[in-house]
Amino acid sequence: MKITCQTADLLKGVNIVSKAVPTKTTMAILECILIDASSGEIKLTANDMEIGIETIVEGSILERGIIALDAKKFSEIVRKLPKNEVTIETDSTFKTSITCEKAKFDIIGKSGEDFSYIPNPNRNQPIIISQFTLREIISKTIFSVADNENNKMMTGELLEIRNNKLKVVALDGHRVSIRNVDLKNETNDVKVVVPKKTLNEIIKIIDGGVDDIVNIFVTENHIIFEFDQTTVVSRIIEGEYFKIEQMLSADYETKIKINKKEFFDCIDRATILVNEGQKMPIIVNTSENTMSISISSFIGSMNESIDIVKEGKDVMIGFNPKFVMDALRAIDDEEISLYMLNAKSPCFIKADDGSYIYIVLPVNFNNPGAN
Amino acid sequence: MKITCQTADLLKGVNIVSKAVPTKTTMAILECILIDASSGEIKLTANDMEIGIETIVEGSILERGIIALDAKKFSEIVRKLPKNEVTIETDSTFKTSITCEKAKFDIIGKSGEDFSYIPNPNRNQPIIISQFTLREIISKTIFSVADNENNKMMTGELLEIRNNKLKVVALDGHRVSIRNVDLKNETNDVKVVVPKKTLNEIIKIIDGGVDDIVNIFVTENHIIFEFDQTTVVSRIIEGEYFKIEQMLSADYETKIKINKKEFFDCIDRATILVNEGQKMPIIVNTSENTMSISISSFIGSMNESIDIVKEGKDVMIGFNPKFVMDALRAIDDEEISLYMLNAKSPCFIKADDGSYIYIVLPVNFNNPGAN
Repeated sequence: MKITCQTADLLKGVNIVSKAVPTKTTMAILECILIDASSGEIKLTANDMEIGIETIVEGSILERGIIALDAKKFSEIVRKLPKNEVTIETDSTFKTSITCEKAKFDIIGKSGEDFSYIPNPNRNQPIIISQFTLREIISKTIFSVADNENNKMMTGELLEIRNNKLKVVALDGHRVSIRNVDLKNETNDVKVVVPKKTLNEIIKIIDGGVDDIVNIFVTENHIIFEFDQTTVVSRIIEGEYFKIEQMLSADYETKIKINKKEFFDCIDRATILVNEGQKMPIIVNTSENTMSISISSFIGSMNESIDIVKEGKDVMIGFNPKFVMDALRAIDDEEISLYMLNAKSPCFIKADDGSYIYIVLPVNFNNPGAN
Repeated sequence: MKITCQTADLLKGVNIVSKAVPTKTTMAILECILIDASSGEIKLTANDMEIGIETIVEGSILERGIIALDAKKFSEIVRKLPKNEVTIETDSTFKTSITCEKAKFDIIGKSGEDFSYIPNPNRNQPIIISQFTLREIISKTIFSVADNENNKMMTGELLEIRNNKLKVVALDGHRVSIRNVDLKNETNDVKVVVPKKTLNEIIKIIDGGVDDIVNIFVTENHIIFEFDQTTVVSRIIEGEYFKIEQMLSADYETKIKINKKEFFDCIDRATILVNEGQKMPIIVNTSENTMSISISSFIGSMNESIDIVKEGKDVMIGFNPKFVMDALRAIDDEEISLYMLNAKSPCFIKADDGSYIYIVLPVNFNNPGAN
């Protein structure tokens, strides 16, 4: 194989596919990036068997062939090459020369024949969404996905399309994060649960704006994201997702409008008094047009009040400060609305236009370990 | 005690003295910052018994007193307070209220009486130097100070004044870094070895420019840095420093002028092929007006040539790439001069004006473990 391309193009491709190189694996070949120049294109591939990424790099093929190169070393070399034309040439013993200006590297590759290509299931009608929107709705919900594996369903996000409306849902038993968005194109109804790792990599790779498109295909066992010169194929999580409709129909007796930044900064200050690993609730207490936030721990106590606009009755309720802060961080609005029923019912932070719903379960502040 | 000041001023002071709060100590009182408002000034102090820092914060004293507050929690609180006036008030049980706008913290302090004040030895004539220059000469030599404690003398930097010229020297047995600077004021001759930790903190705290002054006092057991509203007192390392004069008188038979960035980038690329913990030399080999840099390891090999201007005979010599890169990183010149004698003698990187000398010992490239 002999190919030439620009360092910058090669680096971009290597950075994209590197996201699918496993950090730990018993299959040494998976630690490689495959360069496939056996057809008319230079294609880079990496595959950790859960997620596979493939991208096309612009360049010239002087001699067709394929080679698998250690992903870590190959990326480091490409990252540190001068910004100029680079030539990659292999011989029959998989010895690979990487030449750029006056620098020449010789490393030993592996046969590309042993590489596990990524699955290529049949595609039907795509879900079409802008790169900007997809990145937004994932990054503003993914923090609610559970880290622990006890409940497989909680380790992924629900993507559900009904009547051309896309809803993404992430929940971990203590909170629920939901984003809703209208799709511009006619799309079949779909319901699929995508692993957190896949979505985490997707939001790192898709860096386009509102005019750049992602085509999403859902097949029986896979979800496929196609954008620019890149294809990402991931397994999906099989099974029935949680019924969230009944949670959303909850009633409320208190509605509060509050400045988001003031609320966030106040909780941020309160958590200084909680040592890592400790579980101490913040206690929110309304009275007329102010809301006090207080916390007390072994270290000391803190109290602060914030001006609010309140409808309905007063309420006193305890929260895990981290869960409230995570939700506030994901909201761009300057002013937000909180909906509460009582100290035992979840608090809803909802957009008036329905674009987001964040639900945080309260904690018993007399016995904070209970949640 | 009751004082008021601006959050920003308090935060600046807390950040400065925090550098002297020990990370591990058996004396709980040393984990505190002392607020001393018993005289007419608000003075913050921290002291880990090796280095002590004291700084004055602008503000009003409404009731004189002293209190010691847990450094970590107190800094976090100050960092997260609104930017406005803050009031700190203590009662006879050391309960301390920190109030700013509508936020109020209550924490428990400790009696300031138990705190170890920093030593205050008699000062004689100061060494006067700009904050910019002091920061430069320390930060551009300190990487050569040895980390291991086997040789106490190597864990500090020599500051030596002779005929109003200040020389700083750092060495670790494999390399020597020297910076020379002319002092503007008449100064007594001095020779003192200052611990690396002290100098590391000093360069973090002094953020002034060429017109901002540091007064340095050297006493029998201490070195004192006075600048702005801050005093840093540190122990010195006692004993006789290495005789470096004889190293500096070495002869050379090859002089090379080379572009610093090209040389650095080339070594940086070469080291990709060395796994962490491995010791692989780069081999530098001159021939007429080019210098080739090559490396070979278990991973592969790399070779690159750079244009140079050479005087004297050709030379082939091996180096630990890290030591050469550390020196190059500390040099601002675009073009640098290397002076070499043979493969067994140190390489000198010297400024024409004598402002810096970096010496790197070669390694035997047939037996790289030997160095």
